[in-house]
Amino acid sequence: METAMTNDALIGHPDAECILPEGLSVRVKVPASSANLGPGFDCLGMALAIYDEVAVTVTGTGITVAVTGEAADQVPLDERHLVARAVVRGFESAGVAVGGFHLECRNAIPHSRGLGSSAAAAVGGLAAASALVALDGRRPALDDAALVQLSSEFEGHPDNAAASVLGSAVVTWSHGQESFYARRLELHPAVVATVFVPQTESSTETTRGLLPDAVPRADAVFNVSRAALGVVALTTDPAWLIDATEDRLHQGYREQALPETTRLVHSLRERGHAATVSGAGPSVLVLGTSPLGTHEADLAADLGFAMIPVAVADGVEVVS
Amino acid sequence: METAMTNDALIGHPDAECILPEGLSVRVKVPASSANLGPGFDCLGMALAIYDEVAVTVTGTGITVAVTGEAADQVPLDERHLVARAVVRGFESAGVAVGGFHLECRNAIPHSRGLGSSAAAAVGGLAAASALVALDGRRPALDDAALVQLSSEFEGHPDNAAASVLGSAVVTWSHGQESFYARRLELHPAVVATVFVPQTESSTETTRGLLPDAVPRADAVFNVSRAALGVVALTTDPAWLIDATEDRLHQGYREQALPETTRLVHSLRERGHAATVSGAGPSVLVLGTSPLGTHEADLAADLGFAMIPVAVADGVEVVS
Repeated sequence: METAMTNDALIGHPDAECILPEGLSVRVKVPASSANLGPGFDCLGMALAIYDEVAVTVTGTGITVAVTGEAADQVPLDERHLVARAVVRGFESAGVAVGGFHLECRNAIPHSRGLGSSAAAAVGGLAAASALVALDGRRPALDDAALVQLSSEFEGHPDNAAASVLGSAVVTWSHGQESFYARRLELHPAVVATVFVPQTESSTETTRGLLPDAVPRADAVFNVSRAALGVVALTTDPAWLIDATEDRLHQGYREQALPETTRLVHSLRERGHAATVSGAGPSVLVLGTSPLGTHEADLAADLGFAMIPVAVADGVEVVS
Repeated sequence: METAMTNDALIGHPDAECILPEGLSVRVKVPASSANLGPGFDCLGMALAIYDEVAVTVTGTGITVAVTGEAADQVPLDERHLVARAVVRGFESAGVAVGGFHLECRNAIPHSRGLGSSAAAAVGGLAAASALVALDGRRPALDDAALVQLSSEFEGHPDNAAASVLGSAVVTWSHGQESFYARRLELHPAVVATVFVPQTESSTETTRGLLPDAVPRADAVFNVSRAALGVVALTTDPAWLIDATEDRLHQGYREQALPETTRLVHSLRERGHAATVSGAGPSVLVLGTSPLGTHEADLAADLGFAMIPVAVADGVEVVS
């Protein structure tokens, strides 16, 4: 019944005069991220070189989804899929439509581990849509600022989303709950990252519920100074990373919900490593200027964590 | 009765085997500073090119003080004088003593205006003592870290003190209430500063009493993101100075105590200038990339403020 298709059946911008042609296809790769870096709750993030791939091909009608890799069996394989919704949002925002599309996801970022898999999904979908628009050439693609804004709106964690968009480390801030901004930091070349990933999962919603509405002013001032230092340590003086990852606004409140994570962070910090909970946990991120060794790997293994040296990543990019 | 002088009469380190010779003399110039920059309560400061001069000459006995310039008639002209006490503290810390000294202060930094005059006094005295030690050559002088630590202990505002020691803009942080640290920022060359100084004075103690012990977590998170952005804006991207000087942790609570200051800050910000209360007020600092004009000068004059374009300063230095 293809002949009956009207504009009502189009996917994307409702008034689209620009309908992308069938067969147009792109593939993007989008990095994982670590948010809430040390003192930088909701505002300091870093892109990590663990990549999901998102391929989108324009079709005549409908949305089909194929997923391989992480959590492939736990997600809806239709238009409800997070990446598929992000693709649609990208078409809407760019002012284009498609008859349909096929989405293929190859997932490597562990889910529900504090490594920004949802933000990467949103960024991947939006960036794929934007890349199709660029390929088509009739409308301007979404720029980085639009990708940061849309993915932050979409997923709710701008420090994850902006890291996946821009790469490197990022500072994010917002005006109200509506407008999201981010600035990429030029990371000091000596900075290396290591993540510790457990088998157990954690829900950001649950752990966020543990945070109080009011905090001591002294703790606020503490984190303000450490976040300012954080930018200095990340960009110019990594010798201060230990001090720059101290925090009093989020990790302490979540300790009871994340006992192994807490023990690992404390053990690593006692050994002089700048360890911080990645996002809302349960993964742990260590920033430093030299790789960690077998002692740290063994320590982590005893607590159920795998130690993974990981490069700091560039932002989302089109691979084909 | 000079012959009766014993070690008990020495000024400085109690066990000093290193007694500085009479006649040794130095002069240092120490810049004003603006603290609590925007979101950076207690942790972001900037040195401003308004200088006090401190000259110290080693004498045989006693402490004599001569002051000219700002507030010359309001300070005790003996060992209770803040700069004199800082000189003594510097001798103690460096492990030296003197029979006595003559202190000469030429003050240009307005007092009780939020421009760091007390911190400059502490830094000036300590730096003069250190310079005498260096001139003598038998003991090591105080390094910048020691000057930051001692002046912060002495005066209580590390963001003022560290700015006067290190110059440029600084990030400061502490471990507990005891150990103070600071990092100088390499300011973006386009950043220019303007201060607005009123005739009225303000007490830091009074205005600090207006701050609550607990703050909304959202406000803490707000300032954390803005302070991180502050370092970015000051060093690499001054286009973000307006966002980077937003604050929810201190200025709002002090508005009633500083009505003219508040009006001036709001008026300037409405005109697109990154205005912030300097320290605990009542002066106002504007950071930007171009000088302000007659409109801003007139606006300020109507509220009782003098507009003063001011260079960002280097740290305390020995001038002779």
